[in-house]
Amino acid sequence: MTRYVAVCGPAEATPEESAAAEEIGRLLAEGGAVIVCGGLGGVMDAAARGARQAGGTVIGILPGETRAGASEHLTVAIPTGMGEARNALVARAADALIAVGGGFGTLSEIGLALKMGRRVVGLGTWDLARDGEASPEVVRVLSARDAVREALGP
Amino acid sequence: MTRYVAVCGPAEATPEESAAAEEIGRLLAEGGAVIVCGGLGGVMDAAARGARQAGGTVIGILPGETRAGASEHLTVAIPTGMGEARNALVARAADALIAVGGGFGTLSEIGLALKMGRRVVGLGTWDLARDGEASPEVVRVLSARDAVREALGP
Amino acid sequence: MTRYVAVCGPAEATPEESAAAEEIGRLLAEGGAVIVCGGLGGVMDAAARGARQAGGTVIGILPGETRAGASEHLTVAIPTGMGEARNALVARAADALIAVGGGFGTLSEIGLALKMGRRVVGLGTWDLARDGEASPEVVRVLSARDAVREALGP
Amino acid sequence: MTRYVAVCGPAEATPEESAAAEEIGRLLAEGGAVIVCGGLGGVMDAAARGARQAGGTVIGILPGETRAGASEHLTVAIPTGMGEARNALVARAADALIAVGGGFGTLSEIGLALKMGRRVVGLGTWDLARDGEASPEVVRVLSARDAVREALGP
Repeated sequence: MTRYVAVCGPAEATPEESAAAEEIGRLLAEGGAVIVCGGLGGVMDAAARGARQAGGTVIGILPGETRAGASEHLTVAIPTGMGEARNALVARAADALIAVGGGFGTLSEIGLALKMGRRVVGLGTWDLARDGEASPEVVRVLSARDAVREALGP
Repeated sequence: MTRYVAVCGPAEATPEESAAAEEIGRLLAEGGAVIVCGGLGGVMDAAARGARQAGGTVIGILPGETRAGASEHLTVAIPTGMGEARNALVARAADALIAVGGGFGTLSEIGLALKMGRRVVGLGTWDLARDGEASPEVVRVLSARDAVREALGP
Repeated sequence: MTRYVAVCGPAEATPEESAAAEEIGRLLAEGGAVIVCGGLGGVMDAAARGARQAGGTVIGILPGETRAGASEHLTVAIPTGMGEARNALVARAADALIAVGGGFGTLSEIGLALKMGRRVVGLGTWDLARDGEASPEVVRVLSARDAVREALGP
Repeated sequence: MTRYVAVCGPAEATPEESAAAEEIGRLLAEGGAVIVCGGLGGVMDAAARGARQAGGTVIGILPGETRAGASEHLTVAIPTGMGEARNALVARAADALIAVGGGFGTLSEIGLALKMGRRVVGLGTWDLARDGEASPEVVRVLSARDAVREALGP
């Protein structure tokens, strides 16, 4: 059964974040996963580019009413016209979610995915703590390769 | 630029509706369009089956929280957990919409697509009238071939 | 238990439609119902005005990201940022729906409400037919008073 | 102009969280704000109870298709049928958001509200950090009174 993995991160990414996202996209595609993302620039675009280089399928779930601003590397681009509420669709459509870097939208996708019981893997993203203790629910990794292994793992 | 066309109709279809939907899916795929549908059975499943036979791409936008009940012919299956509100996503994702047969969900998709300014083509679907006059906005056709020609036309 | 009734119709209404919507809002409020609407002008604004004159509660579920353009007669205004997908929220929030006049958005709300099993009452709205026969599911009325009686009826 | 403030927190709250939420609801109502919440138990129910004691208006935006499970203290209960995607509606409907305690849903509402540019106030909720530095965007407070002052402040 096909595995769907979301790759989330800011639309304006650092070179390191983009490089990591591109490698994640490529490795996910090589692993047979369908990639889900928010469909815009930065981390989303880099993940899509990497996935397409490996022949993968990439679904972009866009916030706007049209495909304007969509990454050119998407296999299918789905405008929703729902604004930030589309973050719930990104989380819902994925069996696991990899967060790269961190904006507020990424933070919301981490929360939504955890609430929905998805596995969440974090690379250079938000540190979450409650009552002074780090939240164990986000699997922290240090490389794109580890991110993909955790996302695809059993 | 890729054209996205939604094919809408009831989850429990007559043999005639299924045959028409399957031909529509096949012809849309041959015409290079991406097919969007609600991802379940009946007309949705038949359109997906026809499209896949011709090597096409089919996006199923599902109402439930999981992929349970999804047509096996989808290229990508997107559970939304939004129930009937997903009908707005089907209409939004498409440049044109073909309605085959008619349930209440299909009726809502016709209304949403017209509201969003999409071209709507009807084959054996709802007759809409106001003040005793038939609404001209739905392009009525009598065959799958005509439905696809109208949906893909300029 | 409080009954919620949606009043739907075009944002640009005729004087007759506005008068009917205002009377419907007033009668619903007198009957103890909470009024739900799309929160903008025309029929929505008139229904809200009528309801507030009778001391009723009116919920406006807005398509935009802000309260700009909202009717001044709403008790609570809820911007959704979901565009036309908010029509599903209007239908979902109501136990019954009264359609006054007819635009495409109203058509979609009729379809969504019927799909969700709500009672739908129509006053000067769309005529719906399949296979040459009028659809019996929309209860057709000729006056605001009858619309409210049907919407609040057992 | 009426101010809308969301109060967010887990459906299963500690006695301390419930007491704080109830006081927050009461103080917000006394301050003239409309309270928005997710409409269920725990923190949501306590905030609604406090607000109603002070004669306030409370909007509950529910995840399910019906009003089942709704707090009995809501002024209006809006079932959405959208599941967790309703968290975006809670954030969108509010001018400011107070997070009490922390579940994953609350985390997503913090992220969504920050993304939408809303003021976010936290009482005993998630600690957020990036690159080893605490995120300054959430205004941390130690009492219900301070939470309301920050949420209603200029």
